[in-house]
Amino acid sequence: MKNNTFLGLLIVLCLAVNLFADDGHKLWLRAQNTGSVKVVCTKQSPTIDLAKHELAQSWQGKSGASLKLTIQSDPKIKGDGFRLSPGEIQANTDLGILYGVFELLRRQQTGEPVKEEVFNPSYELRLLNHWDNVDGTIERGYAGYSIFWRKGNDSLIVTDKDKILWQEYARANASIGINGSVLNNVNASPLMLTTEYLDRVKAIAEVLRPYGIKTYLSIKFSSPSLIGGLKTSDPLDKDVIKWWQDKVKEIYSMIPDFGGFLVKANSEGQPGPQDFGRTHSDGANMLAGALKPYGGIVMWRAFVYKPSSKDRAKQAYLEFIPLDDQFHDNVIIQSKNGPIDFQPREPFSPIFGAMKKTSVMPELQITQEYLGHSIHLVFLAPMWEEFLHSDTYQKGAGSTVARCTDGSIYDQKHTAIAGVSNIGLDANWCGHQFAQANWYAFGRLAWNSALTSGQIADEWIKLTFKQSSNYTDGVNDPILAEWNLNFLIPVKKMMLDSREAAVNYMMPLGLHHIFAADDHYGPGPWWGPKGIRKDWTPPYYHQADTNGVGFDRTLTGSDAISQYHKPLNDLFNNIETCPEIFLLWFHHVPWNHEMKNGRTLWEEMCYLYDTGVQQVRQFQTIWDRAEFYVDPQRFFEVQSKLRNQCRNAQIWKDACLLYFQQFSNQPIPYDIERPVNDLKDIIQADTDRLRRQ
Amino acid sequence: MKNNTFLGLLIVLCLAVNLFADDGHKLWLRAQNTGSVKVVCTKQSPTIDLAKHELAQSWQGKSGASLKLTIQSDPKIKGDGFRLSPGEIQANTDLGILYGVFELLRRQQTGEPVKEEVFNPSYELRLLNHWDNVDGTIERGYAGYSIFWRKGNDSLIVTDKDKILWQEYARANASIGINGSVLNNVNASPLMLTTEYLDRVKAIAEVLRPYGIKTYLSIKFSSPSLIGGLKTSDPLDKDVIKWWQDKVKEIYSMIPDFGGFLVKANSEGQPGPQDFGRTHSDGANMLAGALKPYGGIVMWRAFVYKPSSKDRAKQAYLEFIPLDDQFHDNVIIQSKNGPIDFQPREPFSPIFGAMKKTSVMPELQITQEYLGHSIHLVFLAPMWEEFLHSDTYQKGAGSTVARCTDGSIYDQKHTAIAGVSNIGLDANWCGHQFAQANWYAFGRLAWNSALTSGQIADEWIKLTFKQSSNYTDGVNDPILAEWNLNFLIPVKKMMLDSREAAVNYMMPLGLHHIFAADDHYGPGPWWGPKGIRKDWTPPYYHQADTNGVGFDRTLTGSDAISQYHKPLNDLFNNIETCPEIFLLWFHHVPWNHEMKNGRTLWEEMCYLYDTGVQQVRQFQTIWDRAEFYVDPQRFFEVQSKLRNQCRNAQIWKDACLLYFQQFSNQPIPYDIERPVNDLKDIIQADTDRLRRQ
Repeated sequence: MKNNTFLGLLIVLCLAVNLFADDGHKLWLRAQNTGSVKVVCTKQSPTIDLAKHELAQSWQGKSGASLKLTIQSDPKIKGDGFRLSPGEIQANTDLGILYGVFELLRRQQTGEPVKEEVFNPSYELRLLNHWDNVDGTIERGYAGYSIFWRKGNDSLIVTDKDKILWQEYARANASIGINGSVLNNVNASPLMLTTEYLDRVKAIAEVLRPYGIKTYLSIKFSSPSLIGGLKTSDPLDKDVIKWWQDKVKEIYSMIPDFGGFLVKANSEGQPGPQDFGRTHSDGANMLAGALKPYGGIVMWRAFVYKPSSKDRAKQAYLEFIPLDDQFHDNVIIQSKNGPIDFQPREPFSPIFGAMKKTSVMPELQITQEYLGHSIHLVFLAPMWEEFLHSDTYQKGAGSTVARCTDGSIYDQKHTAIAGVSNIGLDANWCGHQFAQANWYAFGRLAWNSALTSGQIADEWIKLTFKQSSNYTDGVNDPILAEWNLNFLIPVKKMMLDSREAAVNYMMPLGLHHIFAADDHYGPGPWWGPKGIRKDWTPPYYHQADTNGVGFDRTLTGSDAISQYHKPLNDLFNNIETCPEIFLLWFHHVPWNHEMKNGRTLWEEMCYLYDTGVQQVRQFQTIWDRAEFYVDPQRFFEVQSKLRNQCRNAQIWKDACLLYFQQFSNQPIPYDIERPVNDLKDIIQADTDRLRRQ
Repeated sequence: MKNNTFLGLLIVLCLAVNLFADDGHKLWLRAQNTGSVKVVCTKQSPTIDLAKHELAQSWQGKSGASLKLTIQSDPKIKGDGFRLSPGEIQANTDLGILYGVFELLRRQQTGEPVKEEVFNPSYELRLLNHWDNVDGTIERGYAGYSIFWRKGNDSLIVTDKDKILWQEYARANASIGINGSVLNNVNASPLMLTTEYLDRVKAIAEVLRPYGIKTYLSIKFSSPSLIGGLKTSDPLDKDVIKWWQDKVKEIYSMIPDFGGFLVKANSEGQPGPQDFGRTHSDGANMLAGALKPYGGIVMWRAFVYKPSSKDRAKQAYLEFIPLDDQFHDNVIIQSKNGPIDFQPREPFSPIFGAMKKTSVMPELQITQEYLGHSIHLVFLAPMWEEFLHSDTYQKGAGSTVARCTDGSIYDQKHTAIAGVSNIGLDANWCGHQFAQANWYAFGRLAWNSALTSGQIADEWIKLTFKQSSNYTDGVNDPILAEWNLNFLIPVKKMMLDSREAAVNYMMPLGLHHIFAADDHYGPGPWWGPKGIRKDWTPPYYHQADTNGVGFDRTLTGSDAISQYHKPLNDLFNNIETCPEIFLLWFHHVPWNHEMKNGRTLWEEMCYLYDTGVQQVRQFQTIWDRAEFYVDPQRFFEVQSKLRNQCRNAQIWKDACLLYFQQFSNQPIPYDIERPVNDLKDIIQADTDRLRRQ
């Protein structure tokens, strides 16, 4: 009885926190200390100071306990890794100590035990790519304007507000192990390399440095002619080489730990070495040469395709594989996870594992360009997990993409991974409260590619939504148990199901790139304005006709399957063995093709689109049931977005089923909820929207 | 085997009909003769000629059979009634013969047997009220412009096209027993009584006459001053009396069988006798006096309410009951079915049965002003059946509204019923293919108020959708059985469920008049622009607050229940005995009030709104499954409207639940599908729409 009263009081107390509005700005870093810790450390540095500050601020362990921070190299500890033990953190570097502190604090907050264990990063370089433009807009950004750049006369003045935000940004990144930021869009402005902009880069770098985050820049390949006054930007021209050497020298004089360049060249209209009859390696190596003396690197993107190509999916492999032994060792080829472009589901790009003599890094997209922007709740870790665990078979079974890129299989000079950031000036950073989980997941996977989506979701939910008053300490167990049951478990399920739901209501069975227009948001399998490049229109990708649907990439089709290593090529080539999740990626499939569950292709497509809608409805129910456990602001924000997502899912389902039905000429199975929109109205709404642009 | 082939061929043949577009213009009159009939009739008249023509055109009986048409009065046959026997139709009048022919042909088409039976009409006068304006617009019309009136210089020229349409209109009405049409809006233009407009009325009357349809006009009470040059329209002024006498004389000189006047007086801003300190009876009797010599009647509407009234529902009773013995015997008081205004569900108006010495006629609304316009599929027969069968208890149990108005209980001089038409220039007449069923149902119920909704739906579906090649004749039975199973039964179920579905997703449990704005289409329980009359805003009707919802019309509230006869008044007054379908009509009910099924009021409201949405989804499935049996044009029209209806039902549910949730402060039960719209967005969309008007 008395116990119940006490419990009731506790519940009231801890739920009272929910009454306060929470805009989500604090991300997953919410812990308030519940006691003091005695830190023993002989070394002093800005990074060590930060580590101590974090401990003082967020300590959840036994009050008065003592913690030793030891900087001492150990062959078992790699790079920025650390050894965590009860009472001690050991690392090679100051940054390793900071990472160890964040790991310890995370374990205290999530209730994971601390035993002696070494934590080493999967990748040496763990980078965010910001597609931020110098005018403050963000390409494919859905969370407001850039935190680094802005429009207007005073745009380059560094304010205290800027510095506070950059510091919060750096701290959040450090807490999940990110150690580098490319500060501007890959479609780069040449202005970025002018001294006034570099001054601002310097200011940013100074704020980021103590958190172990290096700054990088995207460069425009034609900068020598655009801002250098040269007549050419030919990478073999000696004046051009000199210009870049001077520019790099200038940069390093300002930013001694500058990380290097990211380059989008000869891609989607960007200039590049091919403009001068040179190769990707000519271009990349010239820049690498300029950076080499300072330890800088070049990240050269493999995202290339031509309107003339019969299959865009093959292009990157065709251009880069022949250059495999041509690149300097401080060049890394950066490839998107799939061979097309960050679709809801793609097979891995065949470049991974196939480039054996070059450092290759995956580029993931955290910002949800093709996955509902900042409106849809889509947790991306399952997609990245699927990608990283994909077996390339390049060195036998088990040659996963992760192992092909993290140095386990190939002797790469550098290992790296990049994520295109979803961060903007929105109070909650990412536009959607749950999009923070994707930023978090990217960092965690970059640090440890073996983490499961479930583990990551579990951590993130606890850090982001658990009230500090119910951090586990034995006393609050009943509250915690209730919270686990009613919030953690269902919300985790929602997150883990969310990517497959999006695939279902957008592009199941290997369908890809069937968006209306260039905003990559709504459905448009019909889309294709007059005069536009065919490979920018959905019919190029889905190839629907009265016989069937899907892109024939088999031996007798575009033969893209041959870019995959045995046995994958045969597996994909055979309609009977091709995984059904990739069926329409690799095959043009008859509408009446029998699926493994006995349904026809058409029926299965109908069921999957409908399942997607039903799943979003389930998410709504899960979230509405969670209301009691969330502060009102975040609750209502997410509730409203889920409603919108549900409406969108319905539009996707209706648009795609009614469009493809024109080719299948079959009814939608009658046990499926009927479309509630006419195809013509959806198309018209789309056209109207375009007309307003 | 051979049989199967033959059957297959037959199916193909009869389904081939479906390939042709059908705009629905033929209504329920589609039968092509399958043989000849020998008609024996001694009399000749335009009406008898029409009867013969119908027989020749649509005969489905044994070819070469003989049919005798006998005009001979018989005490068992009342008014326009008839005796139908195999081989003979007997009637008092030519019109009775025509009605008998239509009944016989209907039976042949629907497969009902013909045995000797007398058919007498429930009501002497069975009228359509057209709310058509002289400029061709139709108040609350959703099927295009008026078939009688149009805008423009040549608007009064009678064309052949006009006459063809009027004849089609007259034939359709005659086929279901309608015998009168009020040609213009109750909010009448005084122009209607000018000679040039009367010329057009004369032309219409000439087309309608052979089909037994009399013409009536709505008049503006202030016509004497507006077009007569008089200084007053006071009904006791002798110049005014003279003016009306002269006007009536003029009308009858042009239209000898003119029916009379319909009057909306002192209602919603219309002029009336009260403007001159006179009573409704003063006004009605003056007009009745002018019409009396010619056999004309006055239909005087009881639809009155004042902004000052604390309960609009009481007003008509309060004004008219005291005048019960005041009206001339050619005056009929016309009352809407419910005490408010054609809502999806109302209790019957307490005027019915309570006015004992005056002819009282029901006014039903065929046009779906409050029931989804011509977008929602709502079959109204169940609503009218519910109304006509409502027991007033005025002369003991069994004193149904039908019996109180059809002369069974009271010795009324006239019995009559009116329906506000849903007809316009749309190719399908009614805007929605299924809205034709409401026109049909009104006519059938006016003829025989004992018909069930199921019988009416059955007839209408067979007449409207059955292919002529599968009219039953024994040979086609297997086809007919399949059609019955796959089309007739499910579509009938859809129709019969449709009104309750609309009540569920719009206004369950006695909620009423919670529309946004004056268009009476979408939800707006919040609606109420500044300065508007309170009794024109939803909060006046739903009275929601944190305690509960509903209009308290009990003894301790507005006491409207006392206008009902014992035991109804007590039944309604007691929250425990009040039928739950009227709960919020009569009571302000606490949110946690326990309903009969054990749910709270709030829960039940949530379930009912959701049920409404689910029902529309079922309708969609029923209709989609019926595709094989319907021509493409009508199939796709209805399919598209059902999709729209489903979207609308969702908006209704979301709007009302989220609005009322602000007062109930309780979650929507979690096993109910969640709202997909935010309340603020629905309100905003509404405001935006209003702004555009």
